Amino acid sequence: MSAARHVVVVGAGLAGTLTAVHLARLGHRVDVYERLPDPRVTARAGGRSINLGLSQRGVAALAEVGVLADVLRAATPMRGRVVHQPGGRLAFQPYGTAADQVLRSVLREDLGDVLLTEARSHPSVAVHFGTRLTALDRGGHDRRPVCAFTDEHGAELVVEPDLVVGADGAFSATRAHLVRGLPADVHQKALPWGYKEFAIPAGRPGDLRRTPDALHVWPGHDGLVVAHPNINGSLTATAFLPLTGPGSLAELTTEAAVRELFDTRFPDVRTLVPDVVEQFLAHPAGHLVTVRVSPWQHEGRVVLVGDAAHAVYPFYGQGMNSALEDCALLRDCLTGPDWAAGLREFERRRKPHTDVLADLSEANFDELRTRVASPLFLARKKADLLLSRVFPGRWVPLYTMISHTDTPYADALRRARRQQAALGWTGAATALAAVVTGLAAARRARREGGRGRC
Amino acid sequence: MSAARHVVVVGAGLAGTLTAVHLARLGHRVDVYERLPDPRVTARAGGRSINLGLSQRGVAALAEVGVLADVLRAATPMRGRVVHQPGGRLAFQPYGTAADQVLRSVLREDLGDVLLTEARSHPSVAVHFGTRLTALDRGGHDRRPVCAFTDEHGAELVVEPDLVVGADGAFSATRAHLVRGLPADVHQKALPWGYKEFAIPAGRPGDLRRTPDALHVWPGHDGLVVAHPNINGSLTATAFLPLTGPGSLAELTTEAAVRELFDTRFPDVRTLVPDVVEQFLAHPAGHLVTVRVSPWQHEGRVVLVGDAAHAVYPFYGQGMNSALEDCALLRDCLTGPDWAAGLREFERRRKPHTDVLADLSEANFDELRTRVASPLFLARKKADLLLSRVFPGRWVPLYTMISHTDTPYADALRRARRQQAALGWTGAATALAAVVTGLAAARRARREGGRGRC
Repeated sequence: MSAARHVVVVGAGLAGTLTAVHLARLGHRVDVYERLPDPRVTARAGGRSINLGLSQRGVAALAEVGVLADVLRAATPMRGRVVHQPGGRLAFQPYGTAADQVLRSVLREDLGDVLLTEARSHPSVAVHFGTRLTALDRGGHDRRPVCAFTDEHGAELVVEPDLVVGADGAFSATRAHLVRGLPADVHQKALPWGYKEFAIPAGRPGDLRRTPDALHVWPGHDGLVVAHPNINGSLTATAFLPLTGPGSLAELTTEAAVRELFDTRFPDVRTLVPDVVEQFLAHPAGHLVTVRVSPWQHEGRVVLVGDAAHAVYPFYGQGMNSALEDCALLRDCLTGPDWAAGLREFERRRKPHTDVLADLSEANFDELRTRVASPLFLARKKADLLLSRVFPGRWVPLYTMISHTDTPYADALRRARRQQAALGWTGAATALAAVVTGLAAARRARREGGRGRC
Repeated sequence: MSAARHVVVVGAGLAGTLTAVHLARLGHRVDVYERLPDPRVTARAGGRSINLGLSQRGVAALAEVGVLADVLRAATPMRGRVVHQPGGRLAFQPYGTAADQVLRSVLREDLGDVLLTEARSHPSVAVHFGTRLTALDRGGHDRRPVCAFTDEHGAELVVEPDLVVGADGAFSATRAHLVRGLPADVHQKALPWGYKEFAIPAGRPGDLRRTPDALHVWPGHDGLVVAHPNINGSLTATAFLPLTGPGSLAELTTEAAVRELFDTRFPDVRTLVPDVVEQFLAHPAGHLVTVRVSPWQHEGRVVLVGDAAHAVYPFYGQGMNSALEDCALLRDCLTGPDWAAGLREFERRRKPHTDVLADLSEANFDELRTRVASPLFLARKKADLLLSRVFPGRWVPLYTMISHTDTPYADALRRARRQQAALGWTGAATALAAVVTGLAAARRARREGGRGRC
């Protein structure tokens, strides 16, 4: 282990607190600075409760620091997706190829509390809330970085640590300071859609429309609703809609317009959530960006993790999981004395995978909107399941590798392509098999529709 | 005129001070905040003096506020480029199609001084140096923006103006705050080349290698030197080189390596500048980015101008000129009472043109590096000149429109394409004419080479 150093972490979110835990365990002193006030003394903001889908990568990262049990206590397992099809039909699509391949729905705040408690339990970690980064001189090989913060009372605080970790999210201030004047590429791409959240109350036992152990999806080309279950049986739903144009968020500003949206496009949501119109109008719209940055580290002095380094759209459910995975790899890269080499190694090993994740997350937007309801998509899912049973361990669907293993993202994509090639799944064969299986699946779905499983 | 409002300008550079002048003249109160200390009380930083090429757009923008004469007093006219060809041959390429189509080489600091003096002469403008933006709540239609600054003593200052103008350059802090959480696209693209500056001392009268009324270019695929003249007869040179790889800035860290670079690639620079190796090693490397952002304004409350909105590579010499042009258009868009509509109008009218400028500036990097020395390029330049004389007012070369008119950039590009189409300059005809003219030009160049003009 290298000699104890002083690390500043910017951001006390999931990646920030987990990084603090890792570095404290390596023997370093860590100060975490968070722009927002302490969640333990401030009431939780009403109207917005974000749920996340914890998958294998996140599970492994939390287990490694011993907080998994605490997290799972507040989590709800999701065995698959319930797709609410037009006309009210339900279709269940299991997430994995085995019964234990589930995702866990967890409130971001609950997960944050567990990690914050763990970080604070280390005597060498201090967390400072209400303190925002206002300037950063990134330093260099022979010069420490200099961070300036302003606290809640407007007082300035200047810190010169050995390393600054930017864990301050998709709109990272650390990132802006890191790339300032450097030959860096930064690409922030906004989805021309926004989102609004609303709560779906708990249903009567056996009400499949509110199955509590699944993600619920209402697909639609011009609008998409996704709902995560909570442990009290309620669901937290997110309506994704275009920002402009007919039926867009820009036009959904009156009761009549919102009511018409749900009546025509998501009629069963209106039935499940009597006050959906009021909730929709009362909540603010959120926005989604993909961010890529290169380099994301500087001379052993500054490094970005999580959304600050690679924000992705939420449609593969991997933003948080990849952030937690980052922290463990960063720790592995900082076990030696040469942190400049360690940070370069971190970027070299990690960025190819998060770049692939960004692509997959964009592609899954189309999948969730349209393809989850198509017979061809269902046929492919069925074929995937079948193949994974016929060739156990040799055919692993891409979704399974991404969500239920810790195979690095780019390796998973490569393997998925290799599997297809090895099995001789040329375009023609795929199409044929899919159509045949699809027709059978569609027939079976019609037979079993009312039971919500197929 | 609308009622007096309070405007905060972030950045006291060229765009910031000119914007302050315009808005003060519209009757508004303007506070300009600048991160750097006052240049009038701080000694100018040694080792770096950036020259800019003032073209028609900049001239018009400065004339309009009555400071052109002051600027031209410190400027040096440039009638064209002297291309230093391999083997020591010189070729002169005039900038315009008429004798009065010249560019003006001016020190950035001199131009900055003139604009700052003009801004400060307005009783309703205050300029605050050593004060950096640390936070910005961008506000909205019914809510003023809130800016937090930290001054040289670490004290915080909070200002709630009607409008914030971000004129804080390519790495704009205002931009980062403006787009935070918005569905905004931001793309910063770094050139994989950097640059170092050095001074070329004044020559003996008649020494064409140091012709003081021209830009000097040493083209090269793997390295490029450009030098602007100063009024004292010296030149300020910039060596552009790849960041990595053989012969790159990463390798040019020893006297031997730098000496070899100039000996093999730019031998006459070594003759002109005896201490070029020492200068090269003593100066820091600079970096170049293209930045595009959309939106660049928000609800009548925040707007970006100049590099903050659209940083471009310097290879078309239009970064500063386009910034000064921005300021006049912004003023025109803010003469009415509805500033939200005015800012939208500013972006709608301006961005298509600065997007074209970014493309042209990237394309000119290749032109300066390689094509300025090629017979085909010289032939095209000659053909352009010839056509503009044969069809006066009907054939205007693109370079002339960009540098010697105020035709908006995208309109200039469209017209250039239309001209080519109208004249039936198909690919084959172009190539044929160019080759024929090129051969003649090359012959003449060989005859006249020693005289430095062709």
